[in-house]
Amino acid sequence: MNCRFSDYVKNILSEKQWLIEEDKLEENRLLSRESIFSLSNGYMGVRGSFEEGCRVSLPTTFINGIFDKSETFMRELVNLPSGISIRFNIEKQRLTIDDQKVLYHKRVLDLKKAILVRCVYLKDKDDRITRLEFIRFLSRASIHCGLDRIIITPVNHSSILEMENMIDGGVVNFADAPRFKVKHFKVTRNESLTRKDGLYLECKTRDDGLSVGCATRIINEDLNNRQFNCFGEISSEFKDLKITKGKTYVIDKYFVYYTQKDIAKNKLKKACLEELDKLNKRGFDKELERHIKVYENKWKQADISIVNDDELNKAIRFNIFHLMSTGKEFDNRVNIGSKLLSGEEYGGHAFWDTEMFMLPFFTYEFPDVARNLEEYRHGLLNAARLNAKKTGYKGARYPWESADEGSEQCPDWTIYPDGHAEPCFVAKYEQHVTSAVAYGVVNYVSTTNDLEYLKNQGLEILVETARFWASRLEYNRKFDRYEINDVTGPDEWHEPVNNNLYTNYLARYNLKLVLDLLENYRKNDRSTYNRLCKKIHLERSEYVAWKEYIEKIYLPKDENSKLLEQFEGYFKLKDVVIEEYDENDWPIKPKALIGIDRETTQIIKQADVVMLMFILQEEFDLETTVENYHYYEARTLHGSSLSPSIYAIMGLRVNDDSKAYRYLSRAANLDLKDLQGNGREGLHGANMGGVWQTVVFGFGGVSNIDGTLHINPKLPDKWKELKFRINFQNRCLEITINKKISVRRIKGKKINIFVKGRKRAI
Amino acid sequence: MNCRFSDYVKNILSEKQWLIEEDKLEENRLLSRESIFSLSNGYMGVRGSFEEGCRVSLPTTFINGIFDKSETFMRELVNLPSGISIRFNIEKQRLTIDDQKVLYHKRVLDLKKAILVRCVYLKDKDDRITRLEFIRFLSRASIHCGLDRIIITPVNHSSILEMENMIDGGVVNFADAPRFKVKHFKVTRNESLTRKDGLYLECKTRDDGLSVGCATRIINEDLNNRQFNCFGEISSEFKDLKITKGKTYVIDKYFVYYTQKDIAKNKLKKACLEELDKLNKRGFDKELERHIKVYENKWKQADISIVNDDELNKAIRFNIFHLMSTGKEFDNRVNIGSKLLSGEEYGGHAFWDTEMFMLPFFTYEFPDVARNLEEYRHGLLNAARLNAKKTGYKGARYPWESADEGSEQCPDWTIYPDGHAEPCFVAKYEQHVTSAVAYGVVNYVSTTNDLEYLKNQGLEILVETARFWASRLEYNRKFDRYEINDVTGPDEWHEPVNNNLYTNYLARYNLKLVLDLLENYRKNDRSTYNRLCKKIHLERSEYVAWKEYIEKIYLPKDENSKLLEQFEGYFKLKDVVIEEYDENDWPIKPKALIGIDRETTQIIKQADVVMLMFILQEEFDLETTVENYHYYEARTLHGSSLSPSIYAIMGLRVNDDSKAYRYLSRAANLDLKDLQGNGREGLHGANMGGVWQTVVFGFGGVSNIDGTLHINPKLPDKWKELKFRINFQNRCLEITINKKISVRRIKGKKINIFVKGRKRAI
Repeated sequence: MNCRFSDYVKNILSEKQWLIEEDKLEENRLLSRESIFSLSNGYMGVRGSFEEGCRVSLPTTFINGIFDKSETFMRELVNLPSGISIRFNIEKQRLTIDDQKVLYHKRVLDLKKAILVRCVYLKDKDDRITRLEFIRFLSRASIHCGLDRIIITPVNHSSILEMENMIDGGVVNFADAPRFKVKHFKVTRNESLTRKDGLYLECKTRDDGLSVGCATRIINEDLNNRQFNCFGEISSEFKDLKITKGKTYVIDKYFVYYTQKDIAKNKLKKACLEELDKLNKRGFDKELERHIKVYENKWKQADISIVNDDELNKAIRFNIFHLMSTGKEFDNRVNIGSKLLSGEEYGGHAFWDTEMFMLPFFTYEFPDVARNLEEYRHGLLNAARLNAKKTGYKGARYPWESADEGSEQCPDWTIYPDGHAEPCFVAKYEQHVTSAVAYGVVNYVSTTNDLEYLKNQGLEILVETARFWASRLEYNRKFDRYEINDVTGPDEWHEPVNNNLYTNYLARYNLKLVLDLLENYRKNDRSTYNRLCKKIHLERSEYVAWKEYIEKIYLPKDENSKLLEQFEGYFKLKDVVIEEYDENDWPIKPKALIGIDRETTQIIKQADVVMLMFILQEEFDLETTVENYHYYEARTLHGSSLSPSIYAIMGLRVNDDSKAYRYLSRAANLDLKDLQGNGREGLHGANMGGVWQTVVFGFGGVSNIDGTLHINPKLPDKWKELKFRINFQNRCLEITINKKISVRRIKGKKINIFVKGRKRAI
Repeated sequence: MNCRFSDYVKNILSEKQWLIEEDKLEENRLLSRESIFSLSNGYMGVRGSFEEGCRVSLPTTFINGIFDKSETFMRELVNLPSGISIRFNIEKQRLTIDDQKVLYHKRVLDLKKAILVRCVYLKDKDDRITRLEFIRFLSRASIHCGLDRIIITPVNHSSILEMENMIDGGVVNFADAPRFKVKHFKVTRNESLTRKDGLYLECKTRDDGLSVGCATRIINEDLNNRQFNCFGEISSEFKDLKITKGKTYVIDKYFVYYTQKDIAKNKLKKACLEELDKLNKRGFDKELERHIKVYENKWKQADISIVNDDELNKAIRFNIFHLMSTGKEFDNRVNIGSKLLSGEEYGGHAFWDTEMFMLPFFTYEFPDVARNLEEYRHGLLNAARLNAKKTGYKGARYPWESADEGSEQCPDWTIYPDGHAEPCFVAKYEQHVTSAVAYGVVNYVSTTNDLEYLKNQGLEILVETARFWASRLEYNRKFDRYEINDVTGPDEWHEPVNNNLYTNYLARYNLKLVLDLLENYRKNDRSTYNRLCKKIHLERSEYVAWKEYIEKIYLPKDENSKLLEQFEGYFKLKDVVIEEYDENDWPIKPKALIGIDRETTQIIKQADVVMLMFILQEEFDLETTVENYHYYEARTLHGSSLSPSIYAIMGLRVNDDSKAYRYLSRAANLDLKDLQGNGREGLHGANMGGVWQTVVFGFGGVSNIDGTLHINPKLPDKWKELKFRINFQNRCLEITINKKISVRRIKGKKINIFVKGRKRAI
């Protein structure tokens, strides 16, 4: 059989270099592929599960900001009633890959157009072959709307196709893990409407009673034989369609969500139906056009184009795609969860991942999204203050995991798959998130020049986080130094430790920059200074005292070399080194680790000292950087997705270019090839930001030194050209690196930058 | 691998001749096997679907008498929240035949003990092999209770087994037919209780608001790690269990139902929990013992034992088993649906199937059940009166399909699988159900001698049904005869016809017997006569006039032979005869039917004239019977399951013994081998009664002639002995037929009977 896409679908698809393609269905990859093929439009996210259902599937529908705790350990994104569901039957045989023989399967994520396209040929027990095609997108032009064009072709039969369009309110979170299964909402309305209006279902979250409305409607030439039903928590529309061999039938399915965060409860239904009416009027093609237009503009800004490395380029685009699809330019009440909106793991919480990994991408590409992320932290400053107070400190302590209201959402207990629970100390010890927030503010402001944000919001965050560190430091009389004991650094395999170098450096950084900033405001903008001091009861004496902390904070290092010590006592641990690498060029767990507690060794999970050298580049000379990079690289197992991209960037900095390229390749394919093995739980958002940073900051050599843009690129031999655009201080610049380095100003006033150390006016 | 039942389970099972065994899982038989392996205890019925779930499955839980219409065409048995569900997981791998490899499967219905036993060996993706065994029964000793012992053996692994005990309120009727799908209840309470109490869910039917409560509890030595959850319409208890390789773990699951028909709404929960407490106290083994005891007594009465025909004997027992399991000795408000409680088809409605096919079994074996069936008809006499009035007649017209309140439940439209609807005339035309009810009364009374029923209930039914026929007859002046036009006889392929012989004979029978009875009561029991006359406004003149009807009713026949004409004009139809038989000895649709409307031919669906000759044996001489049997047999395609058993019995009567045996064999295996091809929809209750009648009335030669018991057996050569018990006029007799015929009186006073025409005092 010559199975293939219909011409219509084929013609919609972009050029091959924009397509993430799947040709084979493998049961053990179904769940991770659902993550890869997830879609988001910033407002909501839907996993790439099949519209018609499938046994091995974890469908989720998230709206960013809709959290609930109920019986679980933390407020997590609510898996909302599913609006994408639609079922097909021919004579009691359901058209699914479980119930029929799959003759052909192809799934394509079109990165350029942000559409998910699928084609499947199914053969039933009576040898009827039916082709189903789907073109799905979450409109970025109408963020409350999802659209799905379903094209049905009975290949060798004429039949009655039975359809059930649905809103499935029977969903739960963690559906396949009975121990953790939880339902975060109650269905409060289930209404079958009219032929014209379709289905409407409303639910409310259990803790906050926040209502969410969902409506769906199918559009088809034939409007006969429709039956509307409410089956408990399922809203359903039945419709049949006489289909004739060889002909092609198009059904457009629209689904719409509104929440009480968008609009008053009593207006939810109306809002949903009006949105459906608009879609109806506009039609699928027109809405798709509008959606693509938005993405065209997004890609014009955020694309990275590499000549002569197509596969890697595509993988890089895949990472950019998901990151930019999730970022929200229209809402400052939400952040970006570590799994974006592509999976349930970590409940949609924001970690330090945002500031350290993702924020740079948004700052340089979509400053309006970055501004929202920054405003989110300011909006939750009070919660951070409470968190500091609650744990016995001053100022603001940001939570390790942050949902919608800023309290600590990292659970105090970890429940293991075997059901035993152990206390979880992450929230207690990983305090470096607070300096990550401060670091984010500084870098956002320095890159965007958004002084208004700094003045009205950022400064307050910086002072309050510095206050936290000031209160957190412990004076060690014996050594006349300040210490931070009982913390976990980025490397989570040593928990807790005293004087983690990364944490101490970042605390010092936080204190230092505030000291400078405050003095600067005091001199140059007294009214802002006064206003702030009044608001947060700050006196000059308080922060002037920080000078001593900055000078005397303990920064452990080896006395006899340039080696920095990850934490006090690290070098005294058993020295185990990685000696073997697998076929993917990935470190193999050293045999020496077997049977011993890895905490007693120098083997680490992820970049820690190396992360520090990346973040505070200016603090370390090249020799130090090189020596430490190699030392720690030989001891890093990359148990976290936050590691490879950092080693890639730093590989370049220490002139280990080939290693940098391999790390980039790994990072870019981390989700696509499910290299962490946990792809079913969702995408790795931080790594995606890391990939972008590796290309732009690493190979592209972009850096912001004291508010001035520097470009010092270093391309792999293979690359004939690297091209991208960045925003910097209200300019948009297009940087093309081939044999030459050309910088073109697309938007904004003239600017002086440094290219390979030489000043240029652009 | 040596897969087998655990010793415990093996030892519980009865001897092989009582076991209906399934060794192979075939996807296309899963649904019909669910019917075969269904269980009922009279109060409720549960299909044989798997506790742990399966993709291809139509689980139903019915309580006889709980009906609802909602959006569908008729009041139908409500598929209630499922209490048998329990799920198992090991490390996110669900233990089901869909998710794991099935190394072994065996399912056994133990007819003697009325338990359903299953053993399955499942191998997961990590090669863990687990044996699951289930012993399920619906207690006949505690009719509100179902029990399931689940025995888990990890064959080659030690793991954490995760269980989810559930009440699944997400169920619907007609789950796999989206066109007909309907939900007949709303979940009104969903409560997770305590470790001790388990789960409780309450729902109410949508039309009547009748509440049903369901509770479930699992019993296991280890009571730790239980989590109770309400997931919308699902009530769930999570529990994990450390299981060790080779060891065996027992979990007892109890589930209990009460309805508002049993007890006041506000006491439902209490009643359920008290019942669970009783079970807890008693334990699984003790309850099983009590249950088996009840069945022991039932079998002692109803068993048919045949020597030297084991397979057929087992098949006959299978039919008896389901029939006697469904009969209800404790409730006169319900009848027995044509599919018993084993499937959704026909909505649990009672047809003429009850009186003509099933009632004789109960009358002779379980007169208390038969009495309830008779009281059911009297209880709904008013509804039958309304039905007559509504359709323009007098007296009482029983509905073709009867649910709980006696109005016509046969839909006016038939919706075909392709969605087109056609008017359905069955209820309009198949009026012979009304004489079936009358026939039932007479035969019940004559066999049981329950004159009290006759006097207080039956007589009224008989008069009112006769009144219906009196008003129904049309006088044909031209021929000076009474006719019944526009009816359908038992053969549903000719619809409607004029003067269906069966209908006319039965109407005459109804009128005649009432005339005699009334005159008898007038003479011998004047007070009863007067009371009745007053109650139903009857005057002697009214029924005396019936004499003329009786004499002049038109009974069409061939003028030149002894051939009876199925209906007026039947012999003028195109004569098509069956010429070929398939490998199962089943008639093949004649080629002559292709392309022509079968209504224009003499091909018929089922016994019609032959049914008549069976019912009113005394009306026809042997020659007539023989001639008509052969004529109609050659034209009967047995499109109805109500046909083979009648042809079996009548085969004997016309001395075509081998044919009779083959028809019996077919009838006895009709469900077991899914010979009608629609086993997925449920068992064929009428056929089951027909099987019993074939053996007892046919081969056993039992007949009741004018209130006297006759025994004229005729065994197939193969049978060395036939033994059974019957109740007759308050005696219980054991009849053993081998070379001799011995009749033993087990209970009751002496009685004179005729054996092979010779009077014997027993």
